[in-house]
Amino acid sequence: MRFLLAFFLLAANSVQAQVDSAFYRKVFNEALGNGQAYARLGELCKTVGSRLSGSPQAEKAVVWGKQMLSSYGFDSVYLQAVMVPRWERSKTESLTFSSAVFNVAIKGEKLQDYNCEAFEELPLKPAKKHKIPAVALGGSIGTNGKLTAGLVSVHSDAQLDSMGRASALKGKIVLLNRPFPESYLNTFKAYGACVVQRVNGASKAAAYGAVGVLVRSMSNRCDLHAHTGVMIYDEKQQKIPAMAVATAVANLLDKLSHQDPNLSVSMELGCQTLPDAPSANVVAETRGSKYPGSIIAFGGHFDSWDQGEGAHDDGAGCMHAFEALRLLKAIGYQPRHTLRCVWWMNEENGLRGANEYASIAAKSNEKHIAALESDRGGFTPRGFGVDSVFLPKVMKYKSLLDAYGIGEIEKGGGGADIGPIRKSNPNAVLVGFIPDSQRYFDVHHSETDVFESVNKRELHLGAAAVAVMIVILDQELD
Amino acid sequence: MRFLLAFFLLAANSVQAQVDSAFYRKVFNEALGNGQAYARLGELCKTVGSRLSGSPQAEKAVVWGKQMLSSYGFDSVYLQAVMVPRWERSKTESLTFSSAVFNVAIKGEKLQDYNCEAFEELPLKPAKKHKIPAVALGGSIGTNGKLTAGLVSVHSDAQLDSMGRASALKGKIVLLNRPFPESYLNTFKAYGACVVQRVNGASKAAAYGAVGVLVRSMSNRCDLHAHTGVMIYDEKQQKIPAMAVATAVANLLDKLSHQDPNLSVSMELGCQTLPDAPSANVVAETRGSKYPGSIIAFGGHFDSWDQGEGAHDDGAGCMHAFEALRLLKAIGYQPRHTLRCVWWMNEENGLRGANEYASIAAKSNEKHIAALESDRGGFTPRGFGVDSVFLPKVMKYKSLLDAYGIGEIEKGGGGADIGPIRKSNPNAVLVGFIPDSQRYFDVHHSETDVFESVNKRELHLGAAAVAVMIVILDQELD
Repeated sequence: MRFLLAFFLLAANSVQAQVDSAFYRKVFNEALGNGQAYARLGELCKTVGSRLSGSPQAEKAVVWGKQMLSSYGFDSVYLQAVMVPRWERSKTESLTFSSAVFNVAIKGEKLQDYNCEAFEELPLKPAKKHKIPAVALGGSIGTNGKLTAGLVSVHSDAQLDSMGRASALKGKIVLLNRPFPESYLNTFKAYGACVVQRVNGASKAAAYGAVGVLVRSMSNRCDLHAHTGVMIYDEKQQKIPAMAVATAVANLLDKLSHQDPNLSVSMELGCQTLPDAPSANVVAETRGSKYPGSIIAFGGHFDSWDQGEGAHDDGAGCMHAFEALRLLKAIGYQPRHTLRCVWWMNEENGLRGANEYASIAAKSNEKHIAALESDRGGFTPRGFGVDSVFLPKVMKYKSLLDAYGIGEIEKGGGGADIGPIRKSNPNAVLVGFIPDSQRYFDVHHSETDVFESVNKRELHLGAAAVAVMIVILDQELD
Repeated sequence: MRFLLAFFLLAANSVQAQVDSAFYRKVFNEALGNGQAYARLGELCKTVGSRLSGSPQAEKAVVWGKQMLSSYGFDSVYLQAVMVPRWERSKTESLTFSSAVFNVAIKGEKLQDYNCEAFEELPLKPAKKHKIPAVALGGSIGTNGKLTAGLVSVHSDAQLDSMGRASALKGKIVLLNRPFPESYLNTFKAYGACVVQRVNGASKAAAYGAVGVLVRSMSNRCDLHAHTGVMIYDEKQQKIPAMAVATAVANLLDKLSHQDPNLSVSMELGCQTLPDAPSANVVAETRGSKYPGSIIAFGGHFDSWDQGEGAHDDGAGCMHAFEALRLLKAIGYQPRHTLRCVWWMNEENGLRGANEYASIAAKSNEKHIAALESDRGGFTPRGFGVDSVFLPKVMKYKSLLDAYGIGEIEKGGGGADIGPIRKSNPNAVLVGFIPDSQRYFDVHHSETDVFESVNKRELHLGAAAVAVMIVILDQELD
């Protein structure tokens, strides 16, 4: 008995010893020196590309992911089948406008990059029709031919309501033009303040008789890239088509709509919703040495929008999780609990993968003690949002985390993909990974979210940060 | 007397009240909501471009800078004349190689971006000559025609010395191929560990009979962009020409040099050093209300290398300083000391502007109580390096700084351009601005240091950070 106790003390000591500053150094050295996340993300982006739920590319990605993860010798790699919604963009997708008072040539991006107003300073020329940067929002119906109507621009819900009540939106295409509040330090907060106009704006406008909506892109930048994203119809309202327009275009159309009472725009969208399609979550595990039945799940979503390559959103989060699992294995860390890297399918327009994951976990009585989500891009890590109940445990490591620039710890820890786990594991600790947010909405859901926008070191530092947080969870929870 | 005391106490209180969290919020709101730095940097980069000391563009920049600053209504804007060295690149600039065992086509950057090794996996083809991404180092002599010699690759000073002593470098072109140590969290530390091979490598190799050097670009990235920078000859050694080669090219040439004992490379450089040219520092001031004769100087260097547009290095630092001065004025801050924004000329290859600035200050008995330098790019701010004597004063503001993500305070505070101020102001507090370092050496001194690599919000956050540090100096020093 004394012998056994001594053994356990020794074991406990060796576990404690594992997570000192030398351990952190080992994790970061492996990530910065031998990191695999960047090369694998490059493969995913360049050999598969975007991965909209239900698309052939999403299926290709699942095959690639299982094969790639299998090559790293984890304890197990498997798929979880799930049916996903399938919305499909069409090549028939255009927005044009015609104005008696203004004619603008959409030139390259350079000028607008530093002087967005330049757009509006071009000389007036005879009216012509202009094709402008705009993309259908995910979930929008098509237009069934060309939809032409007068344009009305609104800046707020209040303005939408007052103009709607005055019947000023009837038969119009409405530009929902509330910009990001730039004073927020964290760009996700600005996104949160505006995204409702993208998600619910079409039905709100339809309630007042609008025939279509254009939504200002959810971005901090003034540029010519349109940013798509999910929109959801209120079934009680007439469904009307919805497009995102680049922020610079929104500025221009807003100005024109005030100068020219006869400004009209034409939308043509061939997008459609097809029957649900089979897809899968992709999972890789390292079995726990002490509590193999207790799971720490961590990951991102494997689907993406169909613009760009889904590099930051959320290829980066998937690679953070894979790389965290890989580098803990590479440095010989023996987890007490089972570590499970999950690439959830269909976060963008349905959350079917996350719900199916939680449902399988519930049915098989899997115990989840914690879950971590990375869905804020592959930028320099800054810290974590952590469930308030677990906050004091994390704060014990604050000086270690600060030494690596990842000690910004805040309350909160939810996430779209890990939230459902709480249904059958109400005590699971939820953690959100927080990287620098400044550039995220430059690329989010747009053609600019490509591999080239990801920095290797930033991505690998993020993976190391995720890895050390997993170790904190593994050490502090039972 | 009692009245006077009450007045002073009131005044002291109102000064203290200025720098609470509401004050910080005002600074950041102005920077994020109405920031001018990004638009002005865009003008500088796109209407002037690169600004190598003594070049016509540097002169154009000085004219632009004085005019631009004057348009903001500061108390004074003026130039300080200074003669600067003038080294000039030539269109005659090429590096080719010929190898019996290898033939590689330099394709676009995409593949190499995520799999640098791909470079070395291309199929062997018959030998041909290849032009490869390489640029003369600043200060290098020309080759006076083509210089062709066998290539020897070395990874360390020790290897250079041992091969040199064994006469293996005689008549050779030497590739100085020590890579950045990637495990350093801060990329400037990695730069510091390697840059000596760029600055002094040519003369070290010349001492062993080498006829030219190629220097691995000072960058974390494996790509096809060559990064220039200053090199300095040891006057006791034969001067030999020096070029920077892209990191991917360095990897390739290193591999080839081991496979092919007859590998030869040809350098052709038409660069030359011309007579010194007239130039200037650009200065803008807001007079102090209490101590107008005491100066807080802050700025960056206005010259740049001739690759790219000098956007991060150091257009960003110049704009940080201008914008800090502008936004303190815009929010109505009354500085106690004179705030002086300085754009020093010729940091890159001579430091003439900084030395002249310090010398003028000494001659005119100007009292400098502090100086702050921003020369680490326009990325998200993280904190400051601060003279150890002033550290406790700054730490009083740590929780305010942390709230804006700029509370990483470390010892140190020197900087190339502010160092000389110490000669006649030994007690001047020196502060270095520290932004995120991960992407800096992706662009440093290369064709990729263009305006498009700068993010508006990151730049404006940096300016706000500089502004609040200036206020700390203004409030805490007498």
